[in-house]
Amino acid sequence: MDYADSDRAQEVAARARDLMEEVVLPIERERAGGMAVSGGTVAELREAAREYDIYAPQISEEYGGMGLSFRDALPAFEEAGRSQLGPVAMRVDAPDEGNMHLLELAGNELQKETYLQPLVDGEIASGFSMTEPLEGGGSDPKMIQTTAEKDGDEWVIDGHKWWTSNGLEADVLIVLARTDQDAHPYEGCSLFLVPADADGVDIVRDVPHMGGGVREASHAEILYQNVRVPEEHLLGELDNGFTHAQERLGPARLTHCMRFSGMAQRALEVAKAYLTEREAFGSSLADKQALRYQIAEAEANLHVARTAIRDAADRIAAGEDARVAVSMCKVYAARVTQDAIDLAVQCLGANGIGKDLPVSDFYEAIRKFRIVDGADEVHKRVIARHAFDDVDEAELEALTRFNDPVSRRPGGN
Amino acid sequence: MDYADSDRAQEVAARARDLMEEVVLPIERERAGGMAVSGGTVAELREAAREYDIYAPQISEEYGGMGLSFRDALPAFEEAGRSQLGPVAMRVDAPDEGNMHLLELAGNELQKETYLQPLVDGEIASGFSMTEPLEGGGSDPKMIQTTAEKDGDEWVIDGHKWWTSNGLEADVLIVLARTDQDAHPYEGCSLFLVPADADGVDIVRDVPHMGGGVREASHAEILYQNVRVPEEHLLGELDNGFTHAQERLGPARLTHCMRFSGMAQRALEVAKAYLTEREAFGSSLADKQALRYQIAEAEANLHVARTAIRDAADRIAAGEDARVAVSMCKVYAARVTQDAIDLAVQCLGANGIGKDLPVSDFYEAIRKFRIVDGADEVHKRVIARHAFDDVDEAELEALTRFNDPVSRRPGGN
Amino acid sequence: MDYADSDRAQEVAARARDLMEEVVLPIERERAGGMAVSGGTVAELREAAREYDIYAPQISEEYGGMGLSFRDALPAFEEAGRSQLGPVAMRVDAPDEGNMHLLELAGNELQKETYLQPLVDGEIASGFSMTEPLEGGGSDPKMIQTTAEKDGDEWVIDGHKWWTSNGLEADVLIVLARTDQDAHPYEGCSLFLVPADADGVDIVRDVPHMGGGVREASHAEILYQNVRVPEEHLLGELDNGFTHAQERLGPARLTHCMRFSGMAQRALEVAKAYLTEREAFGSSLADKQALRYQIAEAEANLHVARTAIRDAADRIAAGEDARVAVSMCKVYAARVTQDAIDLAVQCLGANGIGKDLPVSDFYEAIRKFRIVDGADEVHKRVIARHAFDDVDEAELEALTRFNDPVSRRPGGN
Amino acid sequence: MDYADSDRAQEVAARARDLMEEVVLPIERERAGGMAVSGGTVAELREAAREYDIYAPQISEEYGGMGLSFRDALPAFEEAGRSQLGPVAMRVDAPDEGNMHLLELAGNELQKETYLQPLVDGEIASGFSMTEPLEGGGSDPKMIQTTAEKDGDEWVIDGHKWWTSNGLEADVLIVLARTDQDAHPYEGCSLFLVPADADGVDIVRDVPHMGGGVREASHAEILYQNVRVPEEHLLGELDNGFTHAQERLGPARLTHCMRFSGMAQRALEVAKAYLTEREAFGSSLADKQALRYQIAEAEANLHVARTAIRDAADRIAAGEDARVAVSMCKVYAARVTQDAIDLAVQCLGANGIGKDLPVSDFYEAIRKFRIVDGADEVHKRVIARHAFDDVDEAELEALTRFNDPVSRRPGGN
Repeated sequence: MDYADSDRAQEVAARARDLMEEVVLPIERERAGGMAVSGGTVAELREAAREYDIYAPQISEEYGGMGLSFRDALPAFEEAGRSQLGPVAMRVDAPDEGNMHLLELAGNELQKETYLQPLVDGEIASGFSMTEPLEGGGSDPKMIQTTAEKDGDEWVIDGHKWWTSNGLEADVLIVLARTDQDAHPYEGCSLFLVPADADGVDIVRDVPHMGGGVREASHAEILYQNVRVPEEHLLGELDNGFTHAQERLGPARLTHCMRFSGMAQRALEVAKAYLTEREAFGSSLADKQALRYQIAEAEANLHVARTAIRDAADRIAAGEDARVAVSMCKVYAARVTQDAIDLAVQCLGANGIGKDLPVSDFYEAIRKFRIVDGADEVHKRVIARHAFDDVDEAELEALTRFNDPVSRRPGGN
Repeated sequence: MDYADSDRAQEVAARARDLMEEVVLPIERERAGGMAVSGGTVAELREAAREYDIYAPQISEEYGGMGLSFRDALPAFEEAGRSQLGPVAMRVDAPDEGNMHLLELAGNELQKETYLQPLVDGEIASGFSMTEPLEGGGSDPKMIQTTAEKDGDEWVIDGHKWWTSNGLEADVLIVLARTDQDAHPYEGCSLFLVPADADGVDIVRDVPHMGGGVREASHAEILYQNVRVPEEHLLGELDNGFTHAQERLGPARLTHCMRFSGMAQRALEVAKAYLTEREAFGSSLADKQALRYQIAEAEANLHVARTAIRDAADRIAAGEDARVAVSMCKVYAARVTQDAIDLAVQCLGANGIGKDLPVSDFYEAIRKFRIVDGADEVHKRVIARHAFDDVDEAELEALTRFNDPVSRRPGGN
Repeated sequence: MDYADSDRAQEVAARARDLMEEVVLPIERERAGGMAVSGGTVAELREAAREYDIYAPQISEEYGGMGLSFRDALPAFEEAGRSQLGPVAMRVDAPDEGNMHLLELAGNELQKETYLQPLVDGEIASGFSMTEPLEGGGSDPKMIQTTAEKDGDEWVIDGHKWWTSNGLEADVLIVLARTDQDAHPYEGCSLFLVPADADGVDIVRDVPHMGGGVREASHAEILYQNVRVPEEHLLGELDNGFTHAQERLGPARLTHCMRFSGMAQRALEVAKAYLTEREAFGSSLADKQALRYQIAEAEANLHVARTAIRDAADRIAAGEDARVAVSMCKVYAARVTQDAIDLAVQCLGANGIGKDLPVSDFYEAIRKFRIVDGADEVHKRVIARHAFDDVDEAELEALTRFNDPVSRRPGGN
Repeated sequence: MDYADSDRAQEVAARARDLMEEVVLPIERERAGGMAVSGGTVAELREAAREYDIYAPQISEEYGGMGLSFRDALPAFEEAGRSQLGPVAMRVDAPDEGNMHLLELAGNELQKETYLQPLVDGEIASGFSMTEPLEGGGSDPKMIQTTAEKDGDEWVIDGHKWWTSNGLEADVLIVLARTDQDAHPYEGCSLFLVPADADGVDIVRDVPHMGGGVREASHAEILYQNVRVPEEHLLGELDNGFTHAQERLGPARLTHCMRFSGMAQRALEVAKAYLTEREAFGSSLADKQALRYQIAEAEANLHVARTAIRDAADRIAAGEDARVAVSMCKVYAARVTQDAIDLAVQCLGANGIGKDLPVSDFYEAIRKFRIVDGADEVHKRVIARHAFDDVDEAELEALTRFNDPVSRRPGGN
């Protein structure tokens, strides 16, 4: 189904779809059996993306991207999500995508030159080092214990992070640390660019996890012990790290929605092909209503998600405070994409569990969507606060009548 | 939350909200205890709607409406839905709203003058007489058995209809009858305007049903026995009744979505007020997560529904074939609005069952939404046909490899 | 499906089924169109139940019942639930059934003679007056504000109750009132037998509500103003009212489960008949998987509910503390019976909303099940307390390792 | 919660729990980080199970088991399921457990001596080779294409199987093959014991799949090409293979229910410990209702599942035809155990995805439960057939009145 995307957005998405069909999906299928792609393959995919003119659509042209607005890049992100290799090829892969966005937004010229340019070029990789072991699921920023203290013209960073996405591969780590112990907990933190090979950066291990898939993306546990970085490695404003993190996370939540809705749609495509091909009890499974109508419901849910994603992207593009709309969109999209992929697994029977088809990889990969960048519960907290801030006075007043029995006696007053 | 509605649409919706807050809801509350509103109250409400300049927004100015486009009327329909009296007041109440739409679309000048004008003015009422007892839930149009045969310059109608909305109150009935027995079942039917007092129109009874609410709207069982109408009572083209019915039903499905999403939102407003007011085990129920987070999820679902409704209305406005998008929107909206109202009932405890508050009326009223104008199953059938028409060739081809074990031996070929 | 019920239980249930098929259901069907049954019909139904030897199975023979144990009466309760008239006929109708149980359990000889005997005989009716307007949904007993003060050899009762089931019809009201202001909130209340015609008992109104169905059962709002009852009208022990109420409510919750699972099963029977009869698009709806497989799931859910109900009844019969098991059973049964009836509505299409068939009455009636005798949230509170009282020490200890990065370094110790 | 299990069953389960707590779970925890257990560890675990006197509870004493009835072994199976290593230790691990059951049931003395005894002793392993690539998800037995033809005193087997559980490790494979091409498709198949090292047995590969977990259990694709086995390798009766397979699968479905409900319960234990330990926004997560009440619901669902599993096991023990009850139990248990584990993942946040805790392994492992041994859809087919075989005549008759309008006219007849 087409959406009211701009001509430019549709053109770019069409090229993205060609890249996926002609280059990315064939490689994904060759991989059937479980071997992860190597760095060489990644380089080839990116080369192809450049040839198809669909490389880094969201990055400004100055730094080697295509200069599309957030809203115009949207349909291309959806296409990319149809395979776990798509975002890698098109350089819209988390966490680099969000990190590049943050650098472009908050970085100074030197930082952009040193880190953004080579990131866009795919010469280096980056990690985002925010979550700590003791946090309540990472959801309560007051619990950040990593510190950065100024010592001369250097910052000295100490702390213990984990679930640092891309931590093993990263050349540079963006680290959130408390810089003002006395400030309101939401205000005294800052972001730093820390080279992965700096003294005191101790990559303890890759936290083993479900859902690496084709890419086998790492999530590292890292100790920062007396790590020193020059003062110009402060990223963005001092003590403003949470705001910057939100600037990164807001759009990142939406790009997750885009990619994962593409993944869920692809899972349905595989399931529909399978049901069409397979027979049981005398007719094609596709002709039997039980799964067919569930597919219909999943298609409807994904269509509806796409309208909500576009709505949220429009709000961000318009400069609105879109936090509640993004939270609503993410909670909804995370649920229905997980459900769609679960349904696809069921449609495929044993092949839904198998790795000859991509759907079981998707099943593992999607599960984090309801957890990362704010778990469902965190977003519901945001939505609820908004919803209950705004309780209708007239409805409240109408309720007071409950306490006066006489007024409610039939005909009585 | 605001949406990208036009300035005109927002202005009109704001007036609609004022009407609801200042005139409609106070009357609804007075009614607590179960008495239905009388015709006199209806006339007063419509008078007020005219004063607030929000009467019949969807009808062209020529016939006494406000001349808003379908898309611009949308937010006003949402406002109207917040009380079962809202659509009545604003003259956007089913089935008259759909019937007026159909008359404006397919009626000739005489028909418009005779029926449309007085309908808009609220001087007469109309019924839509399509469903028959023997149909499979009304979903299979091939089963229409009512006939209309030409006899001179009259049509003679015979048949048995039921669930004719508004059948008891109607002054004119729009009747679907088979006019060509030999045609493809989808092609040989036509629509007729039948005065309710014509000879042979036998209103057997009001089919007793759940969910009449404040309005106690009727659904009549009607026998048409040798009913004669002049040939100029044919509405629209001969043998083209199904197409006209679809022209009526497509937008009607969306206006149901608009009104019922307004109703569901109102239910949440009542629930939030109640939870805020009530305490148990030491704190306000609103502060306890169990129901609070469910409210958040319901709010997200309704927000998402509003984005999908707008998307579908935009498609209709753009002249697209929006059938699949409307089906998707309706299936989704019907489910989440029912769920939201069910949640509101639960939040209110015993008062959710009681009639002092409007939510139990909503609970009864919303249940038909998943059934009328195409049950869920009918819409899923439409969506599935679309989804499976379009099975991805590449995915199909990828599946063929399953049957060749050698090609899948690790490293083997 | 048969269950491991005793021979006696199965015999009695078979007679109950005969009564339902031969006497009760035919009357229910005649009523199609919405008229409630009169007192005369109730008397006839009870006469028939005596003839079928299935009257008051749960009451001891001494007081005119059949003397079945709680466990042996179970399958008969399920049969009774298949129509809203079944419990009325068999004298297992709430709230009298629970009130009789309480009187038998806690009443003294005089009270049994005065009230229990005529209740069993159907000569009088009783109400249970516990819920108050200001409570948080009735769930927090600390908020009981009705008082009873001793004055000589009388108790003087003052308070405001509502949702007193059967309040309009009752000859005697069982009232919960605070008798010791200084006691722990859960301990200082008592139960009283209050004649409905006592001075100061002011039945303000029948709280209008959804779901009266065939019976149109009342829920009254009642003011008790300086109501005086003799001291021997104390029911059970002084200051022990909550315990007695729990003794009443525990089994009452299960008998609700029994009756409502019978109702849900009946709804499925009606739906299956309808799907078998109806055709659309060339075959019986029963042969189409979409609804057929949902019926299968609903049947499975109800079967599972029946096993859990039997388990809980066995625990009560064995004298176990069955509170958590009953809460689990009620939460589960309330959900799946509501879902089954909702599905039946959908299967019936417009006739699911109509009152020609009993299912829309069931739809309205079942909604209270998740609210009365402890709302879902109250039971989840009970279950959660039990579940979290018992957190596994070993699992807790295993979690502490998260905080020591070195120990988790691969190969490291 | 305790259930009405026999004293013997409870004693054995208590020893199983001790084994789990003292031996199995500590090893599982050491493994944190993802390494699978080796054969040596398996041998040690089994040695420990013998010491705890909980080895092979379901096998008769004659062959080295404990001789418990199916019903009495039930609670020990639940305990075993709490870790993926539990069934391995206690020798109740699929597919050997089902294969041993089948050998004990249908094998002749020689077969029992040759294969059953060493299987129980853990000296050999077995695979069950039934599913074929072309089947409709394995659900339609008519599609079995593997053949066995008699040639002298040998059977010659040809075919292509996959998803042969344990295929890589197996010393002996139980193969289903068509032996009578002319018979009714459900009747002409037989089972054969095929040594894995027989000529013509070609293990193409381990079908890569999700959910191997600690054990990394294989599912092999196998070509049988002109494989010859002596005639005494026929297992059970000729042409009766489907019946034997059902004898194996019926109880196997229930033992899956037992083990997976243990796994789901364990996941909740880990989640509860985590929520108790973790804080966010000022209090323990366990004290916040959002997840706490969801845990309560999951606990209720699992309790209810346990009652249904016991009911089905009782039926099998009583020699009833329990097929429908088992299908209902499996459909229900598969859904609620998957849901419970999904909830546990969510409670753990990022650690739900991580492999430091066992829950993400459970998440991967449980997904097959709704697919193997009959997918949900196959069981719903069975349940639906039962449910619609038995449509109530009286309800059907009541529906006929719809077609006669006069009879339904109020007051009319």
